[in-house]
Amino acid sequence: MLENLKKEVYEANMLLPKYGLVTFTWGNVSGFDKDSGLFVIKPSGVDYDKLKPEDMVVVDLEGNKVEGEMNPSSDTATHAVLYKNFPDLGGIVHTHSSYATAWAQAGRGIPCYGTTHADYFYGKIPCVRNLTSEEIEEAYEYNTGVLIVDYFKKNDIDYKAMPAVLCKNHGPFSWGKDPSEAVHNAVVLDEVAKMALRTETINPDVSVAPKELQDKHYFRKHGANAYYGQNGQ
Amino acid sequence: MLENLKKEVYEANMLLPKYGLVTFTWGNVSGFDKDSGLFVIKPSGVDYDKLKPEDMVVVDLEGNKVEGEMNPSSDTATHAVLYKNFPDLGGIVHTHSSYATAWAQAGRGIPCYGTTHADYFYGKIPCVRNLTSEEIEEAYEYNTGVLIVDYFKKNDIDYKAMPAVLCKNHGPFSWGKDPSEAVHNAVVLDEVAKMALRTETINPDVSVAPKELQDKHYFRKHGANAYYGQNGQ
Amino acid sequence: MLENLKKEVYEANMLLPKYGLVTFTWGNVSGFDKDSGLFVIKPSGVDYDKLKPEDMVVVDLEGNKVEGEMNPSSDTATHAVLYKNFPDLGGIVHTHSSYATAWAQAGRGIPCYGTTHADYFYGKIPCVRNLTSEEIEEAYEYNTGVLIVDYFKKNDIDYKAMPAVLCKNHGPFSWGKDPSEAVHNAVVLDEVAKMALRTETINPDVSVAPKELQDKHYFRKHGANAYYGQNGQ
Amino acid sequence: MLENLKKEVYEANMLLPKYGLVTFTWGNVSGFDKDSGLFVIKPSGVDYDKLKPEDMVVVDLEGNKVEGEMNPSSDTATHAVLYKNFPDLGGIVHTHSSYATAWAQAGRGIPCYGTTHADYFYGKIPCVRNLTSEEIEEAYEYNTGVLIVDYFKKNDIDYKAMPAVLCKNHGPFSWGKDPSEAVHNAVVLDEVAKMALRTETINPDVSVAPKELQDKHYFRKHGANAYYGQNGQ
Repeated sequence: MLENLKKEVYEANMLLPKYGLVTFTWGNVSGFDKDSGLFVIKPSGVDYDKLKPEDMVVVDLEGNKVEGEMNPSSDTATHAVLYKNFPDLGGIVHTHSSYATAWAQAGRGIPCYGTTHADYFYGKIPCVRNLTSEEIEEAYEYNTGVLIVDYFKKNDIDYKAMPAVLCKNHGPFSWGKDPSEAVHNAVVLDEVAKMALRTETINPDVSVAPKELQDKHYFRKHGANAYYGQNGQ
Repeated sequence: MLENLKKEVYEANMLLPKYGLVTFTWGNVSGFDKDSGLFVIKPSGVDYDKLKPEDMVVVDLEGNKVEGEMNPSSDTATHAVLYKNFPDLGGIVHTHSSYATAWAQAGRGIPCYGTTHADYFYGKIPCVRNLTSEEIEEAYEYNTGVLIVDYFKKNDIDYKAMPAVLCKNHGPFSWGKDPSEAVHNAVVLDEVAKMALRTETINPDVSVAPKELQDKHYFRKHGANAYYGQNGQ
Repeated sequence: MLENLKKEVYEANMLLPKYGLVTFTWGNVSGFDKDSGLFVIKPSGVDYDKLKPEDMVVVDLEGNKVEGEMNPSSDTATHAVLYKNFPDLGGIVHTHSSYATAWAQAGRGIPCYGTTHADYFYGKIPCVRNLTSEEIEEAYEYNTGVLIVDYFKKNDIDYKAMPAVLCKNHGPFSWGKDPSEAVHNAVVLDEVAKMALRTETINPDVSVAPKELQDKHYFRKHGANAYYGQNGQ
Repeated sequence: MLENLKKEVYEANMLLPKYGLVTFTWGNVSGFDKDSGLFVIKPSGVDYDKLKPEDMVVVDLEGNKVEGEMNPSSDTATHAVLYKNFPDLGGIVHTHSSYATAWAQAGRGIPCYGTTHADYFYGKIPCVRNLTSEEIEEAYEYNTGVLIVDYFKKNDIDYKAMPAVLCKNHGPFSWGKDPSEAVHNAVVLDEVAKMALRTETINPDVSVAPKELQDKHYFRKHGANAYYGQNGQ
């Protein structure tokens, strides 16, 4: 089943250690197949250097395993809720990458201090609250997904223009049109988180980048009038 | 004697430079053999790139050398006390890893700011006080072990749920069911120490992670109801 | 056209990932040919591991493409303005290197705290203001160049003695007598930015290095009486 | 002349990039030959990947070149003064290593916060003042050496127990019984400088390590009663 997607998800998972985003097994990438409505995800707790494409687990949007010998990632239910509610997602990544996790632990969203951020994330990268005891008890991973989706809806945030979120005291999720773009955004997220920490150390009274500069850079790379790269040639 | 354990301890020692936990010879790993009541430890001050499995030294629980051509690690007496009092330990690591040592030098335990910490360490990672002049004079390394054991007993800390400690103005010890797990925990400790420093820089008024979230993550990976990884399949 | 310069510019671009100055495609190097009045620049948004010398794009000083199959860097107009107004430049680099960008995001120039800085940059490395909405709207990249040139002229800064600038909420540009020296200065800039951040963390009340020490080091390496290296032998 | 020492000094110089202590050509190692009263030093401004043993320059204690085709390091006069006044030195290193230089730029000596420091440096690592305009004008590099020697004499610091110094707004010098030990100490210095910065960030009110702990660790590794390593076996 979904052999190509398994290979793609496997390769995206292998980018996590390559880019220094994971320690040991702390991370997972999944990829969604629109036709079947199923997604493919890393098995839980398997070392990256032992991982094989055929180890990837196929799961439906209720989080039930459809194919695979191993347990899927313990965060599978979160992925399922995101795919169900953010219909254009093709890939999702969860890591404990060091800088993004530090912002999550600090309970703060990441303000947009410059064009590196604005090139990828339109506005402040949000940090959602802790789950309550009841929500944890009931269904921790599922409710993590619900919390993210509700936050984006209530605050009218476009998940395509804001392809990442921080979960308080936990860490980041990021996504994209496919598994590889989701990892790309996870790398940028950690770089942006690092720069933002250093920016505030250099100038504790710093303000966010002007709106017009954020707009310029975001729309230089995204949307109908984008002219960055070779696509608009 | 204990050739398999020597190999295992050798390999665990070699993980220290691989994971960037040691500069020069600053670190040592030991492994305990329950049957004989002896443990195997790195020789003192030997470069990692010259180390061989047969260099490992066999020591009894009083810290006396039983076999080996070289002097055992200068911290041998500390290891001996820990094995004697924490009966289920199979491996112990001491390093001067950079972030954990900075917390030790600062004289502060590491608060649990997130799930990365809670996945491995149940609660605040403790920092024990300095030894007195008399304790140093009498038996520095032995009394370091006694101090750690007393601290865990007095504060009713389960050494299995808290596999690391900081010694003030010195550095960390960590442990596990075997030498490899002890090194694994040493890696996580330094990562957690790094994240905690950055968390406090980002938000000086940060609070620790909610108890229910700590519990959820710790028991997702440990104990009878664990479901992380492939064991519970 | 300009095959040697293309090769030189290609090689200088490949130094950016080598020195850790770029993530993904975030950076570009150009090189100027005095005879033809044209310059050669990296194509926009191309991965460094897919880049080839023949991909380099030839551009005139009005920023018009003269030769090449791909779109030139989106920052081409900024390079054009700098070459036009700083006539002795042979190479220009733009990166989002992590520490220099953090200073740019903080909106602060980098004070000269020591001889590492003074060996390369004579005085404070300036940070120019944000463009206005009108300037962004009209011609973002072109006006970035104009802003830099105006700032150097108004503040009587010699672009040869100050081969770098920070653009607020954006990042650094650096330059030199050829593409390779421009990259060299970009590496030094990030190192100096890193040291300056740490210097202020260690001593929040720190003062800049004495003028006579800055002079000594700058003129030990630059100008008629330089005696650093092998040139003065 | 001094072919073995040249090889030794060359190899010690090549350790600087290996340990990440230098960017480009910013660093130099020398080695002293007691019999001839001459020393061997890296040529000025030569790239490490082009350096060869035969490029090393032989210099006398007045700083005059005795043999070699290239200019010796621009810091040669400082080395000469140190060898002349610290008679048991066999090797000297100067770098702009990132953390030690940050402390130098901050104008602060490095307090002893722990045993990593105490294992190598007995007490606070001193930071000497800036030279005056007159001292710079007269003989910058020579007077840097004189300043260091005077500081150690006036403050009754044993250069063997304190094998490093910071020069304000400049960077560190370190030394040892041979070129390799001098580099070893330069590596430890930067590690200690890094840990000290982080220690103060974690606890701004931190105190230095107790004297008895410093003594214990220093004398565990140094002097007649040392028992660290294999020498005391």
